[in-house]
Amino acid sequence: MALIVQKYGGTSVANPERIRNVARRVARYKAMGHQVVVVVSAMSGETNKLVALSKELMAEPDPREYDMIIATGEQVTVGLTALALIELGIKAKSYTGAQVKILTDDSHTKARIIHIDQHNLKADLDAGYVCVVAGFQGVDENGNITTLGRGGSDTTGVALAAALGADECQIYTDVDGVYTTDPRVVPEARRLKSITFEEMLELASQGSKVLQIRSVEFAGKYKVKLRVLSSFEDEGEGTLITFEEDNTMEQPVISGIAFNRDEAKITVLGVPDTPGIAYQILGPIADANVDVDMIIQNTGADGTTDFTFTVHKNEMNKALSILRDKVQNNIKAREIIGDDKVAKVAIVGVGMKSHVGVASKMFRTLAEEGINIQMISTSEIKIAVVIDEKYMELAVRVLHKAFELEEA
Amino acid sequence: MALIVQKYGGTSVANPERIRNVARRVARYKAMGHQVVVVVSAMSGETNKLVALSKELMAEPDPREYDMIIATGEQVTVGLTALALIELGIKAKSYTGAQVKILTDDSHTKARIIHIDQHNLKADLDAGYVCVVAGFQGVDENGNITTLGRGGSDTTGVALAAALGADECQIYTDVDGVYTTDPRVVPEARRLKSITFEEMLELASQGSKVLQIRSVEFAGKYKVKLRVLSSFEDEGEGTLITFEEDNTMEQPVISGIAFNRDEAKITVLGVPDTPGIAYQILGPIADANVDVDMIIQNTGADGTTDFTFTVHKNEMNKALSILRDKVQNNIKAREIIGDDKVAKVAIVGVGMKSHVGVASKMFRTLAEEGINIQMISTSEIKIAVVIDEKYMELAVRVLHKAFELEEA
Repeated sequence: MALIVQKYGGTSVANPERIRNVARRVARYKAMGHQVVVVVSAMSGETNKLVALSKELMAEPDPREYDMIIATGEQVTVGLTALALIELGIKAKSYTGAQVKILTDDSHTKARIIHIDQHNLKADLDAGYVCVVAGFQGVDENGNITTLGRGGSDTTGVALAAALGADECQIYTDVDGVYTTDPRVVPEARRLKSITFEEMLELASQGSKVLQIRSVEFAGKYKVKLRVLSSFEDEGEGTLITFEEDNTMEQPVISGIAFNRDEAKITVLGVPDTPGIAYQILGPIADANVDVDMIIQNTGADGTTDFTFTVHKNEMNKALSILRDKVQNNIKAREIIGDDKVAKVAIVGVGMKSHVGVASKMFRTLAEEGINIQMISTSEIKIAVVIDEKYMELAVRVLHKAFELEEA
Repeated sequence: MALIVQKYGGTSVANPERIRNVARRVARYKAMGHQVVVVVSAMSGETNKLVALSKELMAEPDPREYDMIIATGEQVTVGLTALALIELGIKAKSYTGAQVKILTDDSHTKARIIHIDQHNLKADLDAGYVCVVAGFQGVDENGNITTLGRGGSDTTGVALAAALGADECQIYTDVDGVYTTDPRVVPEARRLKSITFEEMLELASQGSKVLQIRSVEFAGKYKVKLRVLSSFEDEGEGTLITFEEDNTMEQPVISGIAFNRDEAKITVLGVPDTPGIAYQILGPIADANVDVDMIIQNTGADGTTDFTFTVHKNEMNKALSILRDKVQNNIKAREIIGDDKVAKVAIVGVGMKSHVGVASKMFRTLAEEGINIQMISTSEIKIAVVIDEKYMELAVRVLHKAFELEEA
């Protein structure tokens, strides 16, 4: 007998028929003798509907009230899922985040989990119940309902698995696992049987949408065995995210290729090459809560330098105004340029730790296609490049082939 | 400065524009210096949608999960109403029943309020907040979400007013007060400036839909000053439900006429006229949780009698099967007949205590129109009759005229 946490996203519970499918899968796990905790998101579309309604009453909704409204999406789904299970003759009980109690800080709309009380769930599991828990939500110490931000249901699943000491946390989604890259771009993309936690973290942070990065971080921190599976297939073992690195020798050099079009590049030209310049540029950006991803500074020959960084495309104009209004004159920069026609492509793999030449192979492959590299960022197990947006799919395809990812 | 509880039903908060109207009225009361607690129902149509969704997954939904799902309707409205208030620059905070905490028993879908914690609300009111509380819901001692049953939002409003010692509980609805009878049936029907608690209770129990009977009972028990007002008019003082009887002398004999088509009549013919017969007939009915309203038994000449009672139309067939399957042979009844083509008409007024001849005037008025009376039931301030459904409107009209209710 194992204790399994299963998380189902919005498309997996989009309508009563799909909710019945979820219930049937849970019933199979119960029949095998397992204890099951189910975490569900809002039915797809519901959250957007509630957001639109809120914005009709207040353009930038008060965060406490926003959470109050949005949290109802998951509350409906837990009730419906419990009904579907009870209809199958399974003992089931639904829980809001507050009922569990999933204690968070009071940062409404992007709260962080502080502690999960496992007492109620354990008692119900031991009494034979399937516990159906609302994802994405919690409660602060004053009893206010909080939400974890979009995608927070994955985090709920992993955090519950950690708190309960579950044997496995299964994330059911609309794909049947983690692929070497997005099969919509490279039809030869191959599902990975397993991937290390570090690789998954890099893939998620580089743009793979399969798992939310916060949930992967959580899984890493609490050593939760994660498995990504399709909620639309009854067979299939999905992709296991492992912590064992003992079999690194057998690992391919590269596990996967991530990419995204979410970032824009901002370049500050002709900055005096003096200490404190980076802080003078990025300080006001950070103060405005604009997240910065890649940062590059090159030393120039004439005592000036160019400073480049990337932000989310939605925030490019905000960042440009801040720089032009508050920074440009102070640091005597010649010009400030924004470019949102860029894309980021990253190759990820623990194997590259022990293989030289991965970077040069990547750069040569792109050069052979005439793709100019605008920025480079590396970690121990990742090389990311920023290129012209129009070459993104081509870059992913040629890299997938060059690193032989289509072969098992 | 007064403390006022305002309750808004589903049609009053049916869409963002109407919610803004509610917020504007609340703002006016705040501007007068009052403390305001707002109780809201689900946006009209939402509860039915959630009920339909639940029934898709389980024909007779598990009551605990049903409450979990249904309670989200009010939770959305409190958040939206708070947003509308904040948008107007009013400090506002929404509350679920559990957050207040409105403690109920654990009778899911028809829970009874046991206690209301006024601590949180008082603190927020004193800090200048408008408190927006979800109607219709509470929480049991184990933290399970409960609902009070349809119409329970009125009860929430009155119970909160009692717990907080409010100066007035205002029930906003789609009519501008309590009328002598339904103006859709009698165009001359007149709004009452005030009505006694006992009369309101009789009118509500006899079919007037303006106020839920449970909320009137609650108001009576805790001496809460209730006022019924229109949420679609900014002026108007509505109808005050009073507890003073000192001005009974000036009261008209009859205050109002209530009617409904909700009941069906069941007659058990040819029952031996022996002790215990009533229990043998009604015991199994009560065991099946079928509510019985009027009961009549006449002594017959030949040692047998006929026994008649009314139930809700929806439950007539259930009651008939119980009687035919489990009762008829035991008590040797000749025949069991159901009739759902009946209606109940009741005249109500504290004035009838001191006036003889009210009943005979009612019966004569009906007889003059050739309307046969099938059953009669009386209380100190009410006379109700069951008649053929097709004469209902006619009966209401002629009684309204006979008792001169159109005159102020």
